[in-house]
Amino acid sequence: MSTEDAGFKAALQEARQGSQEGGVPIGSALVSADGKILGQGHNMRIQKGSATLHAEISTFEKAGRLPASAYRGATVYTTLSPCDMCTGACVMYKVKRVVIGENKTFVGGEEYLKSRGIEVIVLDDKECYDLIQKFIQEKPGDWYEDIGEDE
Amino acid sequence: MSTEDAGFKAALQEARQGSQEGGVPIGSALVSADGKILGQGHNMRIQKGSATLHAEISTFEKAGRLPASAYRGATVYTTLSPCDMCTGACVMYKVKRVVIGENKTFVGGEEYLKSRGIEVIVLDDKECYDLIQKFIQEKPGDWYEDIGEDE
Repeated sequence: MSTEDAGFKAALQEARQGSQEGGVPIGSALVSADGKILGQGHNMRIQKGSATLHAEISTFEKAGRLPASAYRGATVYTTLSPCDMCTGACVMYKVKRVVIGENKTFVGGEEYLKSRGIEVIVLDDKECYDLIQKFIQEKPGDWYEDIGEDE
Repeated sequence: MSTEDAGFKAALQEARQGSQEGGVPIGSALVSADGKILGQGHNMRIQKGSATLHAEISTFEKAGRLPASAYRGATVYTTLSPCDMCTGACVMYKVKRVVIGENKTFVGGEEYLKSRGIEVIVLDDKECYDLIQKFIQEKPGDWYEDIGEDE
């Protein structure tokens, strides 16, 4: 797993698009065991006034209704360490692996993912970090709201 | 906390509506510390072809964008024990309490909620149980898909 993966590139492209839209710049992609991108999306808190469309939730939603078997062996790529909600979505659908762009900004449910048998890989990608850091500096209130924290 | 709570009644009414729509009959409501219903919703997997709009996620979504403070002291009512995704949403937003209609059909993240400091109350309500049991008998494939399990 590396920043050259098509899934990571899709997630990063989603984060860039979120940034261009003025939204929380976090992107994600869901890739099947055989390498097909099943869905990709980005955080829509600002764009849709959404309290639940984090990047990973957007991605599962875009992938649509799938049988449990579709998630077996699948990988979730996300540009930032997943919050507890998105962690729970990965656990519920029993994906195999979560590949994280960076976790310097925020560490979500990585240990919980591991405890539930899901592989966690952190790529430490600079662009993922730069995108979210710029957003936090510009719109700290929106950022803290997005992770359920007081500013 | 009892089946007489306005929040529980709202959640149950949502589950009934979901049943009438032919959907997964699980309902939920989010009630603030001072007793105001901030949002309520039901599972929309079938109605919207959604992979993420479980009852609790629908409810957080209907409540809309709120500051972290709005969730402090809040209670999530749900007619069925919450799956890992919905558990994670409650953890992320740091609600105070989750009140569950029944958990004979399915036990979700109750222990994890407790481990993260969230109070869990199970009401063992017969109508909640009957609604979901009827659905599972009629549409087992939709049910197992909804919780990410093989049939």
